[in-house]
Amino acid sequence: MPGMIQSIERSSAVLRLLAADPDRLRVKEVADALGLPKSTAHSILRTLEHVGFVEQDPRTARYRIGRGLLDLGTAGIDANELRGRALNWADTLAARSGEEVRLGVLRDGLVLVVHHVFRPDDSAQDLDTGVRLPAHATALGKVLLAYSATAAAPAGGLDAYTRRTVTAREPLAVELAAIRARGWGLSAEEWRPGLAGIAAPVRTSGGLVVGAIGIAGPVERLTDTRRQARPALVEQVVAAARSISREVQS
Amino acid sequence: MPGMIQSIERSSAVLRLLAADPDRLRVKEVADALGLPKSTAHSILRTLEHVGFVEQDPRTARYRIGRGLLDLGTAGIDANELRGRALNWADTLAARSGEEVRLGVLRDGLVLVVHHVFRPDDSAQDLDTGVRLPAHATALGKVLLAYSATAAAPAGGLDAYTRRTVTAREPLAVELAAIRARGWGLSAEEWRPGLAGIAAPVRTSGGLVVGAIGIAGPVERLTDTRRQARPALVEQVVAAARSISREVQS
Repeated sequence: MPGMIQSIERSSAVLRLLAADPDRLRVKEVADALGLPKSTAHSILRTLEHVGFVEQDPRTARYRIGRGLLDLGTAGIDANELRGRALNWADTLAARSGEEVRLGVLRDGLVLVVHHVFRPDDSAQDLDTGVRLPAHATALGKVLLAYSATAAAPAGGLDAYTRRTVTAREPLAVELAAIRARGWGLSAEEWRPGLAGIAAPVRTSGGLVVGAIGIAGPVERLTDTRRQARPALVEQVVAAARSISREVQS
Repeated sequence: MPGMIQSIERSSAVLRLLAADPDRLRVKEVADALGLPKSTAHSILRTLEHVGFVEQDPRTARYRIGRGLLDLGTAGIDANELRGRALNWADTLAARSGEEVRLGVLRDGLVLVVHHVFRPDDSAQDLDTGVRLPAHATALGKVLLAYSATAAAPAGGLDAYTRRTVTAREPLAVELAAIRARGWGLSAEEWRPGLAGIAAPVRTSGGLVVGAIGIAGPVERLTDTRRQARPALVEQVVAAARSISREVQS
């Protein structure tokens, strides 16, 4: 049908075909049923397997409907898996930046810290894993809000943690749009006086944001005299987020 | 990820995003969350709506997960809806060809006749709607088998209805492959002596075959002296099947 994306139509037909059949199907059976070249059917099946919508029996190479279709709302990755994929990149980011690193996901409008790497300077620090942080006042949180379809406007008032916390809807919406445009977020003394954070999104297949990774440290180390994030640090955070995104998608 | 079909990855992300959110989402919210241009998000959402995987609230224009994802195995169309979409085209085919017309779907390895138009010659005829016909011996059935992923090898023996019925697996498989290659099927005295049938598949989105339409009549009217289907009739049957496929997809 005109205006429709053919590969999406075809993948819906593949899913219906697999769902209607009690047996697992071969690539050729799928291709024949839909009148597709075998290579096309194979590409569609491999992509659907990659996103968790179909599963292949490694022994017989036959396909069936995947578990991912049954628990769609989970984004196909849980916080533990995300943490496991991010461990090495978080360590690298802490070592390169010299700052502490947090990996967070959005839960009920708050940032749940799922991994925390200490600043590599032997100073006394508290482990933050499992802690919940306010979303609108932290770099991790603002990044997660920016790519969350509706959490961008959390219900209720926005608490002021410092005099710099953005507490009005409109300026927050403008800032979230800016984060989407540049692909990273900054919080400068919006959560704790003297502290700043820089964060970037972790994306799974199709661009779905499943978490954020960021550094935190003294505002004078993370920003310049005009309170702009230091480009070298931004680059390190964005690079770490991209690397984790690749891990998550592989 | 290399080798993956981007629009399928993106549509899986759209589905996960909608599934994770209790609210219906606007096109812009989906686009922002996934970092897509609004026009791209709109094309994906429209296609997913077209295949029944998402639903749009006509009042608010917001999207949510569709019922079609919950009952995947039904091909998104039931026999009654198929019949409703085919009525006019079946009448036209009977009038043009001068033969009786049947619309069938595959159920438990048999052809279930869901609609029957009498031959337009005022002769006494029995209504066949609701009757089940053997798949391997009829044109309708062979077309349905040709595009069925696994029913191509029905369990148990293949009954012989005439001396021309194809009852061995191998020749049947060869014939089904030929049907897929040319897009229509012929049965010449394989079900009843003296009778022949010509049929073609009805396809929904993505090429999924959901039924077949065909004509039946005396073998000397439907085939030539070498028992080949008459091209003018094949063309009429294929054109009717294409028209119904368009109805089903709209």
